[in-house]
Amino acid sequence: MAKKHKRIYYFGKTKTDARGVSKSIVGGKGLNLAEMTSIGLPVPPGFTITTEVCAAYYENGKKLPEGLIDEVKKTVRILERELGKKFGDANNPLLVSVRSGAAVSMPGMMNTILNLGLNDVATEGLAKATNNDRFAYDAYRRLINMFGDVVMGIEHHEFEVAFDKVKAKYKVKDDTEVPAEGLKELCEAYKAVYKKHTGQNFPEDPIVQLALSIEAVFGSWNTDRAVKYREIEGIRNLLGTAVNVQAMVYGNMGEDSGTGVAFTRDPNTGQNKFYGEFLVNAQGEDVVAGIRTPQPVADMPKWNRAIHKELLGVKKTLEDHYAEMQDIEFTIERGKLYMLQTRSGKRTGLAAVKIACDLVKEKLIDEKEAVLRVPPNALTQLLLPSFNAAARGKANVLCSGINASPGAAVGKLAFTAEEARERKDAGESIILVRRETSPEDVDGMSAAVGILTSTGGATSHAAVVARGWGKCCVAGAGDVQIDEKAKKIKVNGKTLGAKDIISLDGTTGEVMLGAVETQDPKLSGDFAKLMKWADKYRTMAVRTNADSPKDSKKARDFGAEGIGLCRTEHMFFEPDRIIHMRAMILAEDEPTRRAALKKLLPFQRKDFEGIFKAMNDLPVTVRLLDPPLHEFLPHEPAAQKEMANELGCKPADIKKRSVALHEANPMLGHRGCRLSITYPEILEMQVQAITEAAIRCAAKKIKARPEIMIPLVGTFKELSLLRKQVEATIAATKAAKKFTGKLDISIGTMIEIPRAALTADEVAEHADFFSFGTNDLTQMTFGYSRDDVGGFLPDYIEQDILEVDPFQALDQTGVGQLVEMGVQKGRSTKKDLKVGICGEHGGEPSSVDFCHRVGLNYVSCSPFRVPIARLAAAQAAIQNG
Amino acid sequence: MAKKHKRIYYFGKTKTDARGVSKSIVGGKGLNLAEMTSIGLPVPPGFTITTEVCAAYYENGKKLPEGLIDEVKKTVRILERELGKKFGDANNPLLVSVRSGAAVSMPGMMNTILNLGLNDVATEGLAKATNNDRFAYDAYRRLINMFGDVVMGIEHHEFEVAFDKVKAKYKVKDDTEVPAEGLKELCEAYKAVYKKHTGQNFPEDPIVQLALSIEAVFGSWNTDRAVKYREIEGIRNLLGTAVNVQAMVYGNMGEDSGTGVAFTRDPNTGQNKFYGEFLVNAQGEDVVAGIRTPQPVADMPKWNRAIHKELLGVKKTLEDHYAEMQDIEFTIERGKLYMLQTRSGKRTGLAAVKIACDLVKEKLIDEKEAVLRVPPNALTQLLLPSFNAAARGKANVLCSGINASPGAAVGKLAFTAEEARERKDAGESIILVRRETSPEDVDGMSAAVGILTSTGGATSHAAVVARGWGKCCVAGAGDVQIDEKAKKIKVNGKTLGAKDIISLDGTTGEVMLGAVETQDPKLSGDFAKLMKWADKYRTMAVRTNADSPKDSKKARDFGAEGIGLCRTEHMFFEPDRIIHMRAMILAEDEPTRRAALKKLLPFQRKDFEGIFKAMNDLPVTVRLLDPPLHEFLPHEPAAQKEMANELGCKPADIKKRSVALHEANPMLGHRGCRLSITYPEILEMQVQAITEAAIRCAAKKIKARPEIMIPLVGTFKELSLLRKQVEATIAATKAAKKFTGKLDISIGTMIEIPRAALTADEVAEHADFFSFGTNDLTQMTFGYSRDDVGGFLPDYIEQDILEVDPFQALDQTGVGQLVEMGVQKGRSTKKDLKVGICGEHGGEPSSVDFCHRVGLNYVSCSPFRVPIARLAAAQAAIQNG
Repeated sequence: MAKKHKRIYYFGKTKTDARGVSKSIVGGKGLNLAEMTSIGLPVPPGFTITTEVCAAYYENGKKLPEGLIDEVKKTVRILERELGKKFGDANNPLLVSVRSGAAVSMPGMMNTILNLGLNDVATEGLAKATNNDRFAYDAYRRLINMFGDVVMGIEHHEFEVAFDKVKAKYKVKDDTEVPAEGLKELCEAYKAVYKKHTGQNFPEDPIVQLALSIEAVFGSWNTDRAVKYREIEGIRNLLGTAVNVQAMVYGNMGEDSGTGVAFTRDPNTGQNKFYGEFLVNAQGEDVVAGIRTPQPVADMPKWNRAIHKELLGVKKTLEDHYAEMQDIEFTIERGKLYMLQTRSGKRTGLAAVKIACDLVKEKLIDEKEAVLRVPPNALTQLLLPSFNAAARGKANVLCSGINASPGAAVGKLAFTAEEARERKDAGESIILVRRETSPEDVDGMSAAVGILTSTGGATSHAAVVARGWGKCCVAGAGDVQIDEKAKKIKVNGKTLGAKDIISLDGTTGEVMLGAVETQDPKLSGDFAKLMKWADKYRTMAVRTNADSPKDSKKARDFGAEGIGLCRTEHMFFEPDRIIHMRAMILAEDEPTRRAALKKLLPFQRKDFEGIFKAMNDLPVTVRLLDPPLHEFLPHEPAAQKEMANELGCKPADIKKRSVALHEANPMLGHRGCRLSITYPEILEMQVQAITEAAIRCAAKKIKARPEIMIPLVGTFKELSLLRKQVEATIAATKAAKKFTGKLDISIGTMIEIPRAALTADEVAEHADFFSFGTNDLTQMTFGYSRDDVGGFLPDYIEQDILEVDPFQALDQTGVGQLVEMGVQKGRSTKKDLKVGICGEHGGEPSSVDFCHRVGLNYVSCSPFRVPIARLAAAQAAIQNG
Repeated sequence: MAKKHKRIYYFGKTKTDARGVSKSIVGGKGLNLAEMTSIGLPVPPGFTITTEVCAAYYENGKKLPEGLIDEVKKTVRILERELGKKFGDANNPLLVSVRSGAAVSMPGMMNTILNLGLNDVATEGLAKATNNDRFAYDAYRRLINMFGDVVMGIEHHEFEVAFDKVKAKYKVKDDTEVPAEGLKELCEAYKAVYKKHTGQNFPEDPIVQLALSIEAVFGSWNTDRAVKYREIEGIRNLLGTAVNVQAMVYGNMGEDSGTGVAFTRDPNTGQNKFYGEFLVNAQGEDVVAGIRTPQPVADMPKWNRAIHKELLGVKKTLEDHYAEMQDIEFTIERGKLYMLQTRSGKRTGLAAVKIACDLVKEKLIDEKEAVLRVPPNALTQLLLPSFNAAARGKANVLCSGINASPGAAVGKLAFTAEEARERKDAGESIILVRRETSPEDVDGMSAAVGILTSTGGATSHAAVVARGWGKCCVAGAGDVQIDEKAKKIKVNGKTLGAKDIISLDGTTGEVMLGAVETQDPKLSGDFAKLMKWADKYRTMAVRTNADSPKDSKKARDFGAEGIGLCRTEHMFFEPDRIIHMRAMILAEDEPTRRAALKKLLPFQRKDFEGIFKAMNDLPVTVRLLDPPLHEFLPHEPAAQKEMANELGCKPADIKKRSVALHEANPMLGHRGCRLSITYPEILEMQVQAITEAAIRCAAKKIKARPEIMIPLVGTFKELSLLRKQVEATIAATKAAKKFTGKLDISIGTMIEIPRAALTADEVAEHADFFSFGTNDLTQMTFGYSRDDVGGFLPDYIEQDILEVDPFQALDQTGVGQLVEMGVQKGRSTKKDLKVGICGEHGGEPSSVDFCHRVGLNYVSCSPFRVPIARLAAAQAAIQNG
């Protein structure tokens, strides 16, 4: 703040001196108005009182600093001269608007005051100048109301009562039906309300009106609402708000007037054509209110060819200046165009990609800038089916859940995995509805077009599996009551059955009744171009989480540079495998366990061989068995009986084993490397399968690069012990297969237990690599079970205790501290330790940015998020230098 | 290592120069021998080769450093001169023992070699000198065997075979029956074995024997076993082992010889009287082997009054020197006393306290030293019933579990809480046996003398409740299969029913068949004296975890200086309360919930009033409701039906609510402050009850000092929000009660979520105090569910992955890092933030020491551990300065 600033910055034809002054001094709106003015756009002139004055106002005990009003008066004179109008003039009065405007857009601060400058005399003057009594008195009564309400704190209701009396007198219903005479009476009534509640007359002096309004704007900086907003958003170090005083223009001054909003390019497709709508003889609020139907700007030449041409010029000027598609507001007052607002325009993912590429072609931006211009998540729309916007807008929303996996799905309800498979095979499009899904449901999930669960969150089983497949999923829709037996759901009073169709919006989490029209994704050449640029600038690698050759191939097509997480447990759920898995679990001694594992070995080997082939010459991180064994046993008596038949034992044996394995908190139970400690033979089978698969690949000239990852390590001793076992098994397998070549196998661990991060220096001594399992790390750092978080997380988000679901975006403050500590401590032991992330956060842009900043080597995410992660990684590299 | 050391230190009458040399140079044994010699005790002379020589041996490529053997020879000459004996002498040969001895006692290193110096000539000499052929050849054959085995690595079995042949020849069974002639032949046979396996003759030159033995000792420093032992124990920075060479003495040279072990005071009672036993004409190993029954030392005057008197002198010399009760070994060779060993003697808790106090009285130590002399956990024996040692030794141990709460309990088995209560009321002594206990079992646990569970660990519900009451508990005894219906348990093949008696040793975790005799605790005046000293020197306060006025009073009697954790949930389980609690949980809207809570209010207020009264003028930390609501609902259909009857609703409603509240991982679910966020009315009721109780106390001149603790905070926003609610409720309650005085109520939080520790700087802004909940913090930092840890923790301990159960002793490396971070970050925000610990670790000495070192203000533990914590805190203060 060393630089000396003026207190008031003027913008207009006379002079514009706020350009280049920081947003922190003149606010966002002030800078924008100055900027537009300075590039020659027809902006109604005015001036900005700086945020430093606001700070001075507070330092001064909530009084305007000395001399300010004199300076305001002088500036008003300049404005009067430029416009040829005068404050309070009986013929051509100057009217202004007063608005707040801090450096950051901030709801909760003061509303706008319009028509400031009117008083009894000026209103007559306005009536004369516009030749419209009704218009003038309507403007006046609005000023008294707004001023009374916003500046003096009179309840809006008080004015309503007065208005109702006038309407009753004239026997009309709508405000607009009150004649000019009635509005004149209303102004008097409003002044009486004003006097009654303030004890003073409504200030006739426009300068007094202005001074009070400026104070009110400054005062609104510290209302409870504004303070709380800043607190929640973490907005700090702002001086205060600026005040913008700007000449009024009116689009409702007759058929030669009008108002409109437009985009400089099509926000849906990105096509370079002027796109928007306008209304003749109307104010801006009429366009927004939607009472009258506006016309497309393409039709404007029929109404006023010159203005249309001028607007096309404005479009070019703005795009040349901002090098970005703009969203503008304009008003035409008696045939003259005024620009009121311009800002970067919102657009679809498709448009974002096209516009970014086009702007490069037009030499307005460079490749790096283009990469920064596309929000990574917007790519989802290019990769997954979406709803037709119009149809979506009219859809009947039944309820909302968590937007667990994006996309659009339409289908009939099925209530079990078997049913979903059968009906899908019979040709139906199916939405699988479950309380929560488990590995047993995987086949039914695969058969369904979308998945709906009533419990669980963004990292529940359903969500993780669905995202992996790019399949739409709404999770934890608590309003859905499922009656599996009756094959019915109840949702907010409606009952739906197997024949009913619903539509799921995985992007918003909404559930809709009936079939909403969808559209398929289209991948353009622009998309490929943008991805090429992203790959050019990013420094982090992007891998994928994939458990099958099919998923691996898909991810590689999406640009994955290896597998960051291959979960081996999913491989055991197919019917010809699960039986051996279960036999293994039921085994009472090691030899029996080994016999069952021997039968699983060929399956595992085949899976790995396929995956290594799909990922030829790319690293594949294989996580050894992770879930607790009870997850593989059936819990229902019927299923237990069936299993007993298959295995040739008693259902009671299965129940007994199931009870013995039961855990109060399986998340914190006997799983991960703890299984390998008690049952080393499971680890041996898996490592043998990996090694044999790698040997087979070698024979086929396929370069397998497995990275064996030991999960859930909490102390270095677990890793040192198991590492030795892995090494011994690799050596034994090579010897048994008489393989004498070199295999590229490394051994590392997942950092997902807080203690592993805290002691990463010790752990790193035994690890070739680290991979942060931020799902579990988040669970344990917060103490949130991701399966149960639905019980309170919505309240937490609603009450602003959490800004986002920490399972969706990495909590950089808490969990991130452990990640950073893990990286630093790990590399303090091994300077070049390879470190990645394989939690669900690996495909979330803000988390990818964090990963870049703490120095990870790669992120890994589900196949469909690979392009998103590539783009996010590029943005992180460009933004963080 | 700047100081230049000798390579060999002699001890004997000639000279003793190792005194004052560091243990790290001469080893523990070497220093001890030098020390005893230097204070004039009759120690067989000898010398110590330093650890530096060991290091040099390894540096030298496993060769003895140059000139060492020459130096050894010279030192042997000194020894020969002092004793008037000669190596290999045909009339009076010098015999020595060779032993390893590092700075730290270390199993896994070399065994002792005895009788070194014997060869064919010297054996004849020994036979002459002792006039005992058999004795001499027995010594010789032992040397060849030991030397062959220990130094040359010949399997012991090889010698056995040769011995068996000789025994067969002489047709005897026992070694001792072989005549001198046979032993002579055996020596020849042993030499043949030696030659066969080493290819060399047994070395006749004593110096060669000695040189090889010294190398063998050095070599044993780096055997796998020794290396692994040091690795596990974290023993680092040692140079190597020293070698001790010492003249042999024999207690088996006739009726004027003997050997014994003794304590300088009674190790059971601490009484200052010489205590021990001896055997005439025997070697030390005979006393240990227990073949002959030794006589008490009190009877020694009958055998040799002079020696007894000399021993009493030794006792005084040793105690004056070491200022500590000693455990000694001695041998009398032909009427001459030799001291072989002295060390600090093991003793009971009772003895430890008495000896410490007596030594102060005798001016041998000061108060601080006395405080350090008693292991805090030894106090348990003074506070709880224990088994009669003799009876305990003979007990039939059925199985082992986790030593969850110390003490001794004997009773008949009961299988449900109701049964336990009924039979106890009918006069039986009951052991309650449950798979695991839940709050519903509390009344039955209270009725039982001891608790046995088959799952769960040291911080399971059963363990925590039992410890709080000082009641014996063995938890997680996995071998116990409970059939609740049949009222039977199966334990390792035995089946026991309701009429069978078992005994539980809560100190070791063992379960014994039948009634083992117990003894009641006795509190002596010495105990009070020691506690007074402890309180004088400690700087940390000691509070207690107590939930009732009764426990509070008990804890105060034990010296508690307030309550560090008052759990409020236990208060809801009594029959007249649980019904309202359940009605609250079943309520579908806030008004119904409030109505039920209103009925709970008077109960809570009464509890708090009682506790505040018992803790008059001491702080009472009240934790707001913590467990998930489903813990309060019955899970069995019968109980659900009963509850439905009581509440006048349908069992289906209860089942439905129970299902809705079910959580996959309740530990990480909707509990702690998360309940207050969703149901603020629960918090309001509790705070209102606390405030009203404090107001009532004020009227009775009782000074209530409640500290309201908000549990499970993970982000500062939870605390800032709830703090405001607590403050508002206090204010509203004061207003409603028209109380205008000052209440001493503070508001803080439990730090038990890793994220709270990581962000303690933010959390501290809203907290008056922190209390570390290290139970949950351990669960989340390790990712261990304390209810399920029994599935793998035993394997972890057995395989040395963990040294101790982290729920018993705080894991200083991992969890401790978070505690330290929490303290530092918290105090970086609030310099004087009061910080305590209320996890189960608060009463565990090594954890208390840690708490002292990181600067906690207090520890809190169950009432029976308060004296232990007081003593541990004093030791921490004294040791850490």
